[in-house]
Amino acid sequence: MAMTGILILAHGSRRKETEDVLAAVVAKVKNYVAVDLLETAFLQFSENDLARGLERLIARGATEIRVIPYFLFSGVHIREDIPAELESFRRDYGNIKITLEPSLGDDDRLAMILADKIKAVI
Amino acid sequence: MAMTGILILAHGSRRKETEDVLAAVVAKVKNYVAVDLLETAFLQFSENDLARGLERLIARGATEIRVIPYFLFSGVHIREDIPAELESFRRDYGNIKITLEPSLGDDDRLAMILADKIKAVI
Repeated sequence: MAMTGILILAHGSRRKETEDVLAAVVAKVKNYVAVDLLETAFLQFSENDLARGLERLIARGATEIRVIPYFLFSGVHIREDIPAELESFRRDYGNIKITLEPSLGDDDRLAMILADKIKAVI
Repeated sequence: MAMTGILILAHGSRRKETEDVLAAVVAKVKNYVAVDLLETAFLQFSENDLARGLERLIARGATEIRVIPYFLFSGVHIREDIPAELESFRRDYGNIKITLEPSLGDDDRLAMILADKIKAVI
């Protein structure tokens, strides 16, 4: 049976506190969905990078991995950098199926959240 | 009477299509909130930068401006770069009150959206 691992991938920041922010978001996520094989990683500025996150999931038994980018825009990172890193990773772990899923920013509810933020200040 | 302008500020990308993505989000926002003095701008990679966005709102009659960052994390841009740019701008437009509001990423609903994205692939 396929064991699906989820990797939430964020941009990362020179400001390390943002890693705690993602951890807090993921803690809330676990209130909404029962998922065991879940890890986070950061594309930049962190030792916990994309490859490390993938390797942790594999060490925990994942046989396929869905990478969900916690990004608002499909810019160069999503279109070029992450696919290139995944392609390189796949060469070492050919038996693991890894797919890059749509980014957070694709969700229509972001417009509603933004509208609420505007309502709060006008 | 104070005329409040809203500036939605995104990171910007070398990939110009992301500007259309923000435009599409803002078009949806207008279905949820009636706001006339609304502009967008990009911190990096765009001629439509923070100062341009602020100037457009002022030209349209804004006497105070709320800057809402369309960012997921309060990293160095939010904590240092944007406040510094706003401080510099205020020196030239001392009569305009400009405030930096909380970022999109502060909203609890993002965890719910992320949970739905996980549910869709496990």
